[in-house]
Amino acid sequence: MDINILLFDDFETLDAFGPVEVFGCIEEYRLRYVSLNGGTVVSKQGIRILTENIDDVDPYGILLIPGGQGTRALVNDSEFIEKLSDAAMKSEYCLTVCTGSALLAKTGLLDNIRATSNKKAFEWVKSVNTNVLWVKESRWVVDQKYYTSSGVSAGIDMALGFVSEMFGVDKAREVCRHIEYIWNFDPDNDPYANIY
Amino acid sequence: MDINILLFDDFETLDAFGPVEVFGCIEEYRLRYVSLNGGTVVSKQGIRILTENIDDVDPYGILLIPGGQGTRALVNDSEFIEKLSDAAMKSEYCLTVCTGSALLAKTGLLDNIRATSNKKAFEWVKSVNTNVLWVKESRWVVDQKYYTSSGVSAGIDMALGFVSEMFGVDKAREVCRHIEYIWNFDPDNDPYANIY
Repeated sequence: MDINILLFDDFETLDAFGPVEVFGCIEEYRLRYVSLNGGTVVSKQGIRILTENIDDVDPYGILLIPGGQGTRALVNDSEFIEKLSDAAMKSEYCLTVCTGSALLAKTGLLDNIRATSNKKAFEWVKSVNTNVLWVKESRWVVDQKYYTSSGVSAGIDMALGFVSEMFGVDKAREVCRHIEYIWNFDPDNDPYANIY
Repeated sequence: MDINILLFDDFETLDAFGPVEVFGCIEEYRLRYVSLNGGTVVSKQGIRILTENIDDVDPYGILLIPGGQGTRALVNDSEFIEKLSDAAMKSEYCLTVCTGSALLAKTGLLDNIRATSNKKAFEWVKSVNTNVLWVKESRWVVDQKYYTSSGVSAGIDMALGFVSEMFGVDKAREVCRHIEYIWNFDPDNDPYANIY
């Protein structure tokens, strides 16, 4: 199954590449890096990445949407939101990290769905779409096919949670050993929920 | 100050981009992505990254060396090891993640220096240079200007430890809040040291 990682200028590096590290350990997954128009995308941390055009990949897989500074402009980019909506609708599972959930919320697909986001940016994310059932205290939230995580590093914990649901907890723990990661495996353990 | 991140084909994504996420939060640092010949480098997880030629950047900064599958061939690539040796010698600080320490060990610069590495690959790394004072049980090790970490995710903990030494622990904790990271701040806490 393909994991389509949707990149855009000023995405937050670890939002995308934390989960990528986890999913890269799963033989059944093929990772593809896509963007609205293909070509070079530059992360907030200045990494220049070559991407495929989102129109050129099979959308019936897993869609991963990072967050970051770039989301602030993109929530108002109707062409981007339309493409995202189409891709998210066709995906078997749709995962967001950090303010990636603001982008997904803008499509309307999260209406009446439980979801979370970055805690520092939480008020802004909520303001993007108040029909979403926003959950403040959660490392990550699962509702139907939508997996939404808190800020940046929480995406790694969610990706491991996803692997655990798909392949069992032993597989998730095997990935942890491989990448020497200390997993916060409890989605209810969110140490950053109430610090702002 | 520049942080030069030395990339090569089949580097492990999170080895490089975990610390990048941390250092990207520090205003005083400028991140540069370099490789032996410049151009496109492809990580083990298939990310295609545009890099600068290592000859074109200022070497008197911080050098970050990731590990990964690509190191297995590179320890025997004399041109690469010579360039790495020159860059590491000129650097103010030199940081390795995972089997990146095998590359640095090959230069001889770690002789009689304490260092660590990935725990699954530890025996191979030791075999690259037995004059290094290899430390098995440590999340990361600091000796003189050399910071070496255990596998993959340990690089994030080390990067935060580095920030803590340079700018104080409050700055490191501020970065943790920003990226919602649960920091293993104790280099002696290495849960993966003795599982193989």
